[in-house]
Amino acid sequence: MTTRWGILSTAHIATKVAKAIERAHGATAVAVASRSMEKAKAWADKHGIPKAHGSYQALLEDPEIDAVYIPLPPALHREWVLQAAQYGKHILCEKPLAKNTAESIEMVEVCRKAGVQLMDGVMWVHHDRSDRMKQDLSRLGKLRRVTASFSFCWDVIPEKNIRLDPALAGGCLGDLGYYCARAIWWAYGELPSKVYATARYVNDVEMNLSAMLWFSDERMASFDCGFDTQMRQWLEVAGTRGSLVCDDFVLPWSESKARWWLHDGTGRGEERSVPDCVQEVRMIEHFSELVRTGVLEARWPNETVTTMRICDALAQSARQNMPIDLPG
Amino acid sequence: MTTRWGILSTAHIATKVAKAIERAHGATAVAVASRSMEKAKAWADKHGIPKAHGSYQALLEDPEIDAVYIPLPPALHREWVLQAAQYGKHILCEKPLAKNTAESIEMVEVCRKAGVQLMDGVMWVHHDRSDRMKQDLSRLGKLRRVTASFSFCWDVIPEKNIRLDPALAGGCLGDLGYYCARAIWWAYGELPSKVYATARYVNDVEMNLSAMLWFSDERMASFDCGFDTQMRQWLEVAGTRGSLVCDDFVLPWSESKARWWLHDGTGRGEERSVPDCVQEVRMIEHFSELVRTGVLEARWPNETVTTMRICDALAQSARQNMPIDLPG
Repeated sequence: MTTRWGILSTAHIATKVAKAIERAHGATAVAVASRSMEKAKAWADKHGIPKAHGSYQALLEDPEIDAVYIPLPPALHREWVLQAAQYGKHILCEKPLAKNTAESIEMVEVCRKAGVQLMDGVMWVHHDRSDRMKQDLSRLGKLRRVTASFSFCWDVIPEKNIRLDPALAGGCLGDLGYYCARAIWWAYGELPSKVYATARYVNDVEMNLSAMLWFSDERMASFDCGFDTQMRQWLEVAGTRGSLVCDDFVLPWSESKARWWLHDGTGRGEERSVPDCVQEVRMIEHFSELVRTGVLEARWPNETVTTMRICDALAQSARQNMPIDLPG
Repeated sequence: MTTRWGILSTAHIATKVAKAIERAHGATAVAVASRSMEKAKAWADKHGIPKAHGSYQALLEDPEIDAVYIPLPPALHREWVLQAAQYGKHILCEKPLAKNTAESIEMVEVCRKAGVQLMDGVMWVHHDRSDRMKQDLSRLGKLRRVTASFSFCWDVIPEKNIRLDPALAGGCLGDLGYYCARAIWWAYGELPSKVYATARYVNDVEMNLSAMLWFSDERMASFDCGFDTQMRQWLEVAGTRGSLVCDDFVLPWSESKARWWLHDGTGRGEERSVPDCVQEVRMIEHFSELVRTGVLEARWPNETVTTMRICDALAQSARQNMPIDLPG
């Protein structure tokens, strides 16, 4: 059985995911919705999608759809995730999942009760490389530190962009830092006990943010993210015996070879790689498989809420300019 | 005229610098001193140095010495720098220069009045690569962030080691973080306006420290250092148009080729390098040249005091667990 996808809006990122649905095994895109039927039809034609709906509601009412992909701005996620869950649709929702942790917990709870899978749109965790890198962490001795970075640079700050709109829950923490927070969770598998952050604000959202995080066993993490620094997307996990470095953990530079390095402290980095993987295709395949088997995984909503918790604490720390303790 | 060097103690690092003096143009090692004549003689024989002195005082009184290298533990630097200055010796002193900023300012002032050059033993700034990398910073657009790391790992925490002795001003901040602070100064050329640090203490000295630094124009820096994480010694300077990465800025992996990369945000890093440079030899040559010409450079003591200021503020921040503002 092929999982039948509906796409809830024609946002920019939807193009990438529509193509991924097309390429993925066990998935097919059957409909797209826009607030305007004209726009929906044009987009459906362009992407070879059979059906167009003139409202999100109409798509959710479509009985031929198993799963929806929600690429709307963060501030609209709650409304449409809750609606989709009521219609029994499984939900892949862009990140950040919600405006805050409380909202994300509510969304997770509603989905759980409705028996639908909820997953956020963090693609890199689905890449074949991520599992391989995770295995390699065991070669680093006792882990001591995770450092990450994710930035890109606008030449001119755009006047209208959801990333800078506080009403749409914009800001680089939710947009970029979210990936770094997830990477730190991915490496350590636990919440920080304390966080500290400092941010540069434009239009009352973070333009740039630097973070420091404390974990058990005196492990540390730090990251920076921003819309004001040339594209960087690296991750380093360092332990007592070596370190792992990946210079494109969010968006691999190449689909044919995704690399990382293991360093032993002598300058001789061992390059390792996996071939031929398109992470957004893998994400769709993973999700479609969950829908097909009906074996829903709590892992995904849990990781999402954890990421939200970390980001919320960081946002609060940056606003208050002081370290924030997290409940154990 | 060849600059005639005296080495003030047979500390471990003195071997490396004695070899550098031997290899450097315009420099010769004429004497070594130890608190025991026997030890001084044995070390002089082993390293082919003509003269041995049974006390530091005796070496300073030796009229055939132009410059001294002081590899003693940090807590002894003040005493012997002040003494050496009184005897009109030019002074290359291991880092950290002093126990604190006030002490370093006093030492700089005494040397200035005595008309002798004072320089700390940070070698990497003398490497041919450093000037080339500095030129490359202009290709990065507006600088936004410096991130650095310097660590190595003891399998077992040594019981007797000056690095962990609070009485000898030990700790990873002065020992390793000093290089990171210098690199940040090297890139930005200004003092931070604010710093924040957190540390793990063993024996009341820092075993590991994570730092965050604020600069004008909303530029940031961060670094980590520690005795508890496998050797890492990387530096990243990121700007609006690209970033520069060096993975061995403190101790180049190779003497025949020292490399760094320029990244433009597309994943295609441009590797650049300089050939055949031994940074400790360059350091001795630079210093010997200053002595030979008599044109002393205020740059070196100034950089040292700046580095001390940054480290002191970081140490204070870590102890007090709060950000520290630096006077403008």
